Amino acid sequence: MLDVLELSGVFTFALTGALVGVRKDLDVLGILVLALVTGLGGGIVRDLLIGHVPPHALEDWPLPATATAAAVVVYFLHGPVQRLGRSILLLDSIGLSVFCVSGTVAAAHAGLSVGAATALGAVTAVGGGVIRDVLTAEVPLIFRGELYALPALLGALVSAVVEEADGPAPLYLLAAALCLVWRLLAVRRGWSAPSAWRRRAW
Amino acid sequence: MLDVLELSGVFTFALTGALVGVRKDLDVLGILVLALVTGLGGGIVRDLLIGHVPPHALEDWPLPATATAAAVVVYFLHGPVQRLGRSILLLDSIGLSVFCVSGTVAAAHAGLSVGAATALGAVTAVGGGVIRDVLTAEVPLIFRGELYALPALLGALVSAVVEEADGPAPLYLLAAALCLVWRLLAVRRGWSAPSAWRRRAW
Amino acid sequence: MLDVLELSGVFTFALTGALVGVRKDLDVLGILVLALVTGLGGGIVRDLLIGHVPPHALEDWPLPATATAAAVVVYFLHGPVQRLGRSILLLDSIGLSVFCVSGTVAAAHAGLSVGAATALGAVTAVGGGVIRDVLTAEVPLIFRGELYALPALLGALVSAVVEEADGPAPLYLLAAALCLVWRLLAVRRGWSAPSAWRRRAW
Repeated sequence: MLDVLELSGVFTFALTGALVGVRKDLDVLGILVLALVTGLGGGIVRDLLIGHVPPHALEDWPLPATATAAAVVVYFLHGPVQRLGRSILLLDSIGLSVFCVSGTVAAAHAGLSVGAATALGAVTAVGGGVIRDVLTAEVPLIFRGELYALPALLGALVSAVVEEADGPAPLYLLAAALCLVWRLLAVRRGWSAPSAWRRRAW
Repeated sequence: MLDVLELSGVFTFALTGALVGVRKDLDVLGILVLALVTGLGGGIVRDLLIGHVPPHALEDWPLPATATAAAVVVYFLHGPVQRLGRSILLLDSIGLSVFCVSGTVAAAHAGLSVGAATALGAVTAVGGGVIRDVLTAEVPLIFRGELYALPALLGALVSAVVEEADGPAPLYLLAAALCLVWRLLAVRRGWSAPSAWRRRAW
Repeated sequence: MLDVLELSGVFTFALTGALVGVRKDLDVLGILVLALVTGLGGGIVRDLLIGHVPPHALEDWPLPATATAAAVVVYFLHGPVQRLGRSILLLDSIGLSVFCVSGTVAAAHAGLSVGAATALGAVTAVGGGVIRDVLTAEVPLIFRGELYALPALLGALVSAVVEEADGPAPLYLLAAALCLVWRLLAVRRGWSAPSAWRRRAW
């Protein structure tokens, strides 16, 4: 069950990466690499930081295979995929929620503190997208007002606390749900993250 | 004493990162992430390269706490902070001098050669700023004539030699002082690093 | 023999990195750093991912020395070097062929599967160029139609299969030759990698 969620997260993240490649008119290799780094990059960075080498993405073949499949789908069917719009956004939000929890748990199991595990959970969830944006010479989307990383940070924090307190498994679902609901509300209501505080005129 | 210097270096580096975030009109998360990577990124890259995982920045909570504090200060008070101008430049130069020495020593203790320790000392000192510039889709400032990395390289080289020769502790102060003085003179006199050599006409 | 090939690959890759630095009017440090990361970056990323730390580039001084030499040559003689044009392209293709094989073998020796070793072989061959482009705020050249990474991927795949099957040494030469010939034909004939598939009108 968890594996299915994780792989569907990788698939959707990789879809968004490959779509950026198509939009930027990159070649087939650019599309493939963007799919791979967007789908797997967050987990790879986390694994490097906790010293789990080679990273899972290089050990468990279903992970790169799933990201590659997303690249193939986008390569041939980018038109229809782009028209899915909202459904991708939903799947992407599920991926975000799964990754912030699974990344936090992996970091906590490696012996990291609550704070460090929270940070690495968020890195797992958003790191791939940041690498995608860096590779296409863009300022990362998550820094530009999109309310995307803060829900992941919340989900990661809750799961780190649950892990530390040795709480029951369903609480991880709660953590993921908090992230998912906040993210979906942000999309639907157009909420955005605030930029630097400016004193208002009276 | 050293810890205070190190943390004040992290704080100032993080300040400059957060200020770039404000100037680029990024959101609160972008400001926080730029503060964290600018303050801690050089040390994290060094730790990855010497195999010290998880990196210090994830183990010692004062490090990320200090960088986060700088982000909070900039978020609310970016106007006054920007007006500090010269004082930030001074603090930033102190941070540079401390990091090039402490980074070199950490690398040498991990068993690296004089040359490799020198390189990693310089990476510790300037790596955070490079990541900051990459994340904001800019060519790194230190490649564009700013005389910033060469003083750090000198400080790193001197400390690597002192470490190799098992020299007395005050010599590390000398290494840091050389870096600091060169950097401050460069700022005051407007010295810059030369670009590619071009044959002059007679 | 292999060492000579490897070092000549580092030298040529570093040349191309340094030339980009000159073209972008970076200072001496920018030219040096671009030479180092282009010549050594692919191998460093591979070493980090297989857990070989410190990476070879920090342990074997001929590697950084060779890259530094290339930076010095370009710093003083960028005009003549640029006029070499075709010869650099040939040397660069040889470097690509050597690195995709040596990177794959290093990954396989570290215990990685055929697929992972292939991926890391390709990363070794093209990673430095990608970092060079990221550091100069460009979308990586290898994503923009240049038929460069696909030959490396082929060479890596063949060597990974040879390694897995414990095949005789000359077959590695075949792997390198396949990469080299495909790459040189691509240069000569102007072949490029296809971008996203688009239904043709009848």
